[in-house]
Amino acid sequence: MVVFGIDPGSTVTGWGVVAQSRGRFSLVDCGCVKTSSKTPIPERLLAIHAGLLEALSRHEVDGVAIEAIFRHKSSESALRLGQARGVALLAAMQAGHVAAEYNAMTVKRSVGAHGRADKTAVARMVTALLGGAPPGPADITDAIAIAITHLAHARNAMPRSR
Amino acid sequence: MVVFGIDPGSTVTGWGVVAQSRGRFSLVDCGCVKTSSKTPIPERLLAIHAGLLEALSRHEVDGVAIEAIFRHKSSESALRLGQARGVALLAAMQAGHVAAEYNAMTVKRSVGAHGRADKTAVARMVTALLGGAPPGPADITDAIAIAITHLAHARNAMPRSR
Repeated sequence: MVVFGIDPGSTVTGWGVVAQSRGRFSLVDCGCVKTSSKTPIPERLLAIHAGLLEALSRHEVDGVAIEAIFRHKSSESALRLGQARGVALLAAMQAGHVAAEYNAMTVKRSVGAHGRADKTAVARMVTALLGGAPPGPADITDAIAIAITHLAHARNAMPRSR
Repeated sequence: MVVFGIDPGSTVTGWGVVAQSRGRFSLVDCGCVKTSSKTPIPERLLAIHAGLLEALSRHEVDGVAIEAIFRHKSSESALRLGQARGVALLAAMQAGHVAAEYNAMTVKRSVGAHGRADKTAVARMVTALLGGAPPGPADITDAIAIAITHLAHARNAMPRSR
C-alpha cells in the first residue's frame, strides 16, 4: 500500500510518498513546494496546487492524507493556513482522492512518539521507521509522518495487495 | 470596465459580474455555488473551484475582487473559510487575475453605506446602485458589493476604455 502525505503551509508545503510492505515502511519519494513570503498569496496558492498535482501525477497511490487542524494560534494564521490547505485538498480531489485527516496527536502516536512529543522527537521516530532520515526541511518529515499515520490506520480498511 | 466579485464560503460561494460605464453600474451576470453541509469538504472545494472557473471562463473581465478577512469568530471557522477562499483565489489566478482584496468596511463605504451598516443596508445600497435587486441569496449581493468596490477603487488605476 502506498500513501501520499501532505503538510500544507502558506510558505512551505511538504509532501511524502510512503509504501508499506510486510509491516515495513519505505520512502518512495518526497519533496516540497517552497514559496517566498514576499510573493502574493494567490501566486503561492497557484504554485502549491501545481506542485502537488505534479507530484500526485507521478505516483500511483492508494490514498492521500493530511493533518487535521481544529484550532490555531490566531484566526488570521488559521485563515492563511486554510487557504494553502484548501488548494491541497483540491489537488488531492483532482487526483481522485478524498484526503484522510489525522490530528497531530494521532500522527505523533502513530509514529511511536507520545502525544506531547515535539517535532524533533517525531523526526527521530520517522527516521527510525524509514531506516534513514528523510531529506529536506521539517515540512517533508511531517508529511511523511502523516502518510505513515494513514498506513497504520488504513491497513485494516483497505486492500493490502501491494 | 467589468469586474468579477467573489464572496467565498464553505457552503455557499456567491459571485457577481458588474460593469461600470459613465459612472453607472450594471449587473452583467451573477450566481452561486451551493454545496451541502453534509458533503465532505474536499468535494465542496472541488465544486467551488469548478463553479468559479466555469463562471470566469464565460466572462471577459478586467479584474477580480474578493473580501479581505483578517479576523474571524473562531480559528476553526477561519480555517474552513480559508479553504474555500484558497480555491477561489486559485480559480481567479488560473483565469489570469490576482484578486484584489477589500475589507468589509471599505466594501460598505464603497456602496454608500456607513462602515457599521448591516447586511440589509448594504443590500439596499446595492439594489439602488444597480437599479434593481440582485437575484438569489445574500452571498450574491455581497459578491456584487465587492465587485462595485473594486470598480470604485480601480477606475483611476485601470483603463476606462470599456
